[in-house]
Amino acid sequence: MPIVQIEMIEGRTLEQKRNLVKNVTAAICESVDCPKENVSIIIREMSKEHSAKAGILKCDQ
Amino acid sequence: MPIVQIEMIEGRTLEQKRNLVKNVTAAICESVDCPKENVSIIIREMSKEHSAKAGILKCDQ
Amino acid sequence: MPIVQIEMIEGRTLEQKRNLVKNVTAAICESVDCPKENVSIIIREMSKEHSAKAGILKCDQ
Amino acid sequence: MPIVQIEMIEGRTLEQKRNLVKNVTAAICESVDCPKENVSIIIREMSKEHSAKAGILKCDQ
Amino acid sequence: MPIVQIEMIEGRTLEQKRNLVKNVTAAICESVDCPKENVSIIIREMSKEHSAKAGILKCDQ
Amino acid sequence: MPIVQIEMIEGRTLEQKRNLVKNVTAAICESVDCPKENVSIIIREMSKEHSAKAGILKCDQ
Repeated sequence: MPIVQIEMIEGRTLEQKRNLVKNVTAAICESVDCPKENVSIIIREMSKEHSAKAGILKCDQ
Repeated sequence: MPIVQIEMIEGRTLEQKRNLVKNVTAAICESVDCPKENVSIIIREMSKEHSAKAGILKCDQ
Repeated sequence: MPIVQIEMIEGRTLEQKRNLVKNVTAAICESVDCPKENVSIIIREMSKEHSAKAGILKCDQ
Repeated sequence: MPIVQIEMIEGRTLEQKRNLVKNVTAAICESVDCPKENVSIIIREMSKEHSAKAGILKCDQ
Repeated sequence: MPIVQIEMIEGRTLEQKRNLVKNVTAAICESVDCPKENVSIIIREMSKEHSAKAGILKCDQ
Repeated sequence: MPIVQIEMIEGRTLEQKRNLVKNVTAAICESVDCPKENVSIIIREMSKEHSAKAGILKCDQ
């Protein structure tokens, strides 16, 4: 029942997202020994106005 | 102070969302005995490119 | 594929949590028309030191 | 390594978000004594159809 | 209705958490112009076994 | 800046968690082309009383 939430900056292609969920699922199953049917993933894309590090928005860095 | 986050595939109507928050709030209040004023709900809609099960995006299933 | 995260103050009984997930799942299925097998729920309990409203911890209210 | 997620109703200006991440980061560093480089913030904006209190959507209040 | 989730390494004192929620709430209200009564904060503490950067657990860094 | 939150049932060993963050980080970097220094992971463990599927707690399944 692993549930995974991934936040990242917007702009990846569908092919990259396809690989992302395939590879992250495989990494989880191999690491903690669970069937891949149990793994759910949510991807959330952020704009650079909605992500900050050290008090500065990504769009200002 | 229950705070509820609901992720679901996009495409529900406003009327469905209206019922969703009314019915989920009632279900919580009845189950754990709290006033409905205390319940906050966040709905997040995902595209089928942003949700995966068993390593496969919803848009590819 | 609704995924639900519920945060609430700790201290509910197992029986209350049992009812909570049963009733919230039913409320979702009825409201947005999905099979109950698709609904996953995560409950997270907080201590009163870890929840705040209006800038004041619950343990100080 | 504080990671902060902020959900709020959509509609704030870029300048408000710029101040938000600067001020929240400063508040965290001052309160729990950590370098600002360690603080990551995610902002998520919700429409009034996606936020509810007391079982009623914001758009209906 | 800002809802804030803060994840940080465990070990802060109650006094630090008290200041954290007071100061973060003030920072939000000042930045995005909302009454402090609207701000809810959830603090989640992580052990060093449950937080990672660059593929390495905090407890191994 | 990918930020990853992984919820899973409690009980994995430290060695499994060590592999989990190493392998998930590698899977992300390879899939979406980012340096591993940018990847943060939060692991949250749930008891079987705090996770449900189809309206039934894991501890009752």
